[in-house]
Amino acid sequence: MCVHSCIDPCCLVRRSIQTAWATAEESHMNMDIATVNALTYEDFVNVLGNVVEKCPLIAAAVWSGRPFLTLTALEAAIREFIDALPESGKEGVLRCHPDLAGRDLQSGTLTRESREEQAGAGMDALNSADASRMARLNQEYKERFGFPFVICARMNDKANILRQLSERCQNERAVERARGIEEVKKICRLRLEALVLTDAANKL
Amino acid sequence: MCVHSCIDPCCLVRRSIQTAWATAEESHMNMDIATVNALTYEDFVNVLGNVVEKCPLIAAAVWSGRPFLTLTALEAAIREFIDALPESGKEGVLRCHPDLAGRDLQSGTLTRESREEQAGAGMDALNSADASRMARLNQEYKERFGFPFVICARMNDKANILRQLSERCQNERAVERARGIEEVKKICRLRLEALVLTDAANKL
Repeated sequence: MCVHSCIDPCCLVRRSIQTAWATAEESHMNMDIATVNALTYEDFVNVLGNVVEKCPLIAAAVWSGRPFLTLTALEAAIREFIDALPESGKEGVLRCHPDLAGRDLQSGTLTRESREEQAGAGMDALNSADASRMARLNQEYKERFGFPFVICARMNDKANILRQLSERCQNERAVERARGIEEVKKICRLRLEALVLTDAANKL
Repeated sequence: MCVHSCIDPCCLVRRSIQTAWATAEESHMNMDIATVNALTYEDFVNVLGNVVEKCPLIAAAVWSGRPFLTLTALEAAIREFIDALPESGKEGVLRCHPDLAGRDLQSGTLTRESREEQAGAGMDALNSADASRMARLNQEYKERFGFPFVICARMNDKANILRQLSERCQNERAVERARGIEEVKKICRLRLEALVLTDAANKL
């Protein structure tokens, strides 16, 4: 990393972006799309690497498609990359997701994004009966499909999550693979919106 | 995670695998391929998730292809998955790799595997002139190609790495993308060999 007094143009640009990003993060403001497009691949992956849970490869790949005109264009590039993966790759994306109310939550090893999403849906405060039911259904789901139950926790509450987990255990594997990937995309959209100005705001 | 006295069959199997793995790790013995094939996707990703640097998606994807007859069959599944990625995806794989002797090494944020590989090639003990040259060439390479210089450090020493970095800066982008991916596969093979018995040993 360059020293702070370095006046090499690359270092000046990097420090400028780092400062802009730090300022945006501190003030809870999101980056505009021009700032996103100006990020080096390293900064892009650092900032956006977890918009698909534990799959920095995906953000790192779509960087090749800059510049993005809008947040929605960036989102579309991510969706297209996922859709082009073989079925095993889509299952791989799902397998990078933690269980809801599972051992990563209990051991404190969730990613920041997952922790906040699971807490928002009350997954960190289940009563004993709900926790047991969730653990049993998660296990049943994983044994049946070979990947975890994925749902956009921000769009659902505890009762809804438990109901859907129970219902979706009955589906066919291909249906659940596709359904899980749709949920991954919803999670991704909300994570993107927490980092990048939405299209309407970009136009202001 | 289950309590240690739980006698549910799933928990017993899990504990048995965890014990086998812990024993293998402690005694520096590698798993045989039958043990690899018996891992749940969660354990498989925990153990093999970094055979391609920061791309657990790849290990998570190839789990779909179990059982593997040999280490080489597992390696082939990983190579095929990488080869089937679009060019942006291959660039994404490269972008998940740290610079050699770069800021992750300096800040102590390398993965364990990378730290050991870079140390083995002397990247953590460069003299001032070599460190400056490495930093300048890494930056030149990244600006030219939009991904980092990747080389299998275990198969090269410091002089060789500096020479190849300098030479490869002159290549075309497509050549370097393909060359980088070949190096990723060499790194992957050696990381696999540190975890799984080789084919000859499996037959003993």
